[in-house]
Amino acid sequence: MPYELYYWPEIQGRGEFVRLALEEAGADYVDVARREDGGLAALLRLLDGEEVERPPFAPPFLRAGRHLIGQTANILLFLGHRLGLAPADEDGRLWAHQLQLTIADLVQEAHDSHHPVSANYYYEEQKAEAKRRAADFLSQRVPKFLGYFERVLARNAAGDRHLVGADLTYPDLSLFQVVAGLRYAYPRAMRRIEAGVPRVVALHNRVAARPRIAAYLRSDRRIAFNDEGIFRHYAELDEDA
Amino acid sequence: MPYELYYWPEIQGRGEFVRLALEEAGADYVDVARREDGGLAALLRLLDGEEVERPPFAPPFLRAGRHLIGQTANILLFLGHRLGLAPADEDGRLWAHQLQLTIADLVQEAHDSHHPVSANYYYEEQKAEAKRRAADFLSQRVPKFLGYFERVLARNAAGDRHLVGADLTYPDLSLFQVVAGLRYAYPRAMRRIEAGVPRVVALHNRVAARPRIAAYLRSDRRIAFNDEGIFRHYAELDEDA
Repeated sequence: MPYELYYWPEIQGRGEFVRLALEEAGADYVDVARREDGGLAALLRLLDGEEVERPPFAPPFLRAGRHLIGQTANILLFLGHRLGLAPADEDGRLWAHQLQLTIADLVQEAHDSHHPVSANYYYEEQKAEAKRRAADFLSQRVPKFLGYFERVLARNAAGDRHLVGADLTYPDLSLFQVVAGLRYAYPRAMRRIEAGVPRVVALHNRVAARPRIAAYLRSDRRIAFNDEGIFRHYAELDEDA
Repeated sequence: MPYELYYWPEIQGRGEFVRLALEEAGADYVDVARREDGGLAALLRLLDGEEVERPPFAPPFLRAGRHLIGQTANILLFLGHRLGLAPADEDGRLWAHQLQLTIADLVQEAHDSHHPVSANYYYEEQKAEAKRRAADFLSQRVPKFLGYFERVLARNAAGDRHLVGADLTYPDLSLFQVVAGLRYAYPRAMRRIEAGVPRVVALHNRVAARPRIAAYLRSDRRIAFNDEGIFRHYAELDEDA
């Protein structure tokens, strides 16, 4: 039975972190809400329906047989060892999850850089606030987060090709996605920031070149970045050239 | 060997979610940074020191023998079954963790309600932005989150006394803390909101009355709420009476 991923059909968003893991593993999965025969309705039924005993708060969520699992990092915790994308030992699994949760914090801040007041208002209604928040995000927060992952790579006793141990794990895929998203949203700032985190950039490039990921990125299963998602390109929020 | 909790010594903050689990379980633990003989220096050494192979991004983190674990929800994932505060089965453990991650999202939004631009600026430097964000937080977000937990309690097949199954688990303790914190920060708004979530309020009250939690709350191990933490009382951000 294929995995069923439930996520908004027109953005990469948080669903993309799950898609990348499923794609890298060559897993059999359905991106349910992108099906034209009632996929979005099926998502909304699980989200808002009264018959679900353990309802998710928000997409993405994953159905795997009798399991219904919400929260991106929790889905990856569940999928990690099943897809061969997490270490076998408890310490390694917790470390991978810890890194994923730190990536989730950065993703939230990336979203809030253009929506600092509320996701309930349009960007145009919070442009002044976004200008201040994005300036801090790009000058302080992104360098702090990416500098942290650079350190994690540098200190990995098994080498700086991966965040955790000697093999690819799901946080590697997620860090690729964050770098790709930040490049789309803030290309000028990223040129500056990337100069200080060569290992992070090299990891991004290696992930992008993996055969299954490269094929996925070229496919129409990969939704293009756009200005409805987490990473948005509003040129006025980027740094000056 | 006692558990070693590392967290900023003068606030409840995110460390409090771990403290509550340790206290409820009667676990042997040291709140390291509150020790006057170099506790804070020990925290900073693990945070910034170059010898840590798997460094945390930020406090809280926990040392348990050879384990060093960061990210609040990840610490609770590690401690949950060891302290008897998580279900034994995989589905139950993932569900408890999913709820904890949703609580973590609410906690982040509670913080950002008074610091919507950046934690790097004083509140006074982002008061106008905070006013808008807090209004949205109290009118939309808190009711949405607490309404969600109300539904989870109502739908629990084992009864509405706990979030997960028939027994106390760590997300129950964390939900208590969120209600306590929101009451401190936004007492007027919470009077309105609590009227719509009676099960959440009853859970808060039951947790507060548990013998070990009640003893902890009376002790000097419980740091008082204050305006350096996540939950801050700025009367001008609260709703009108």
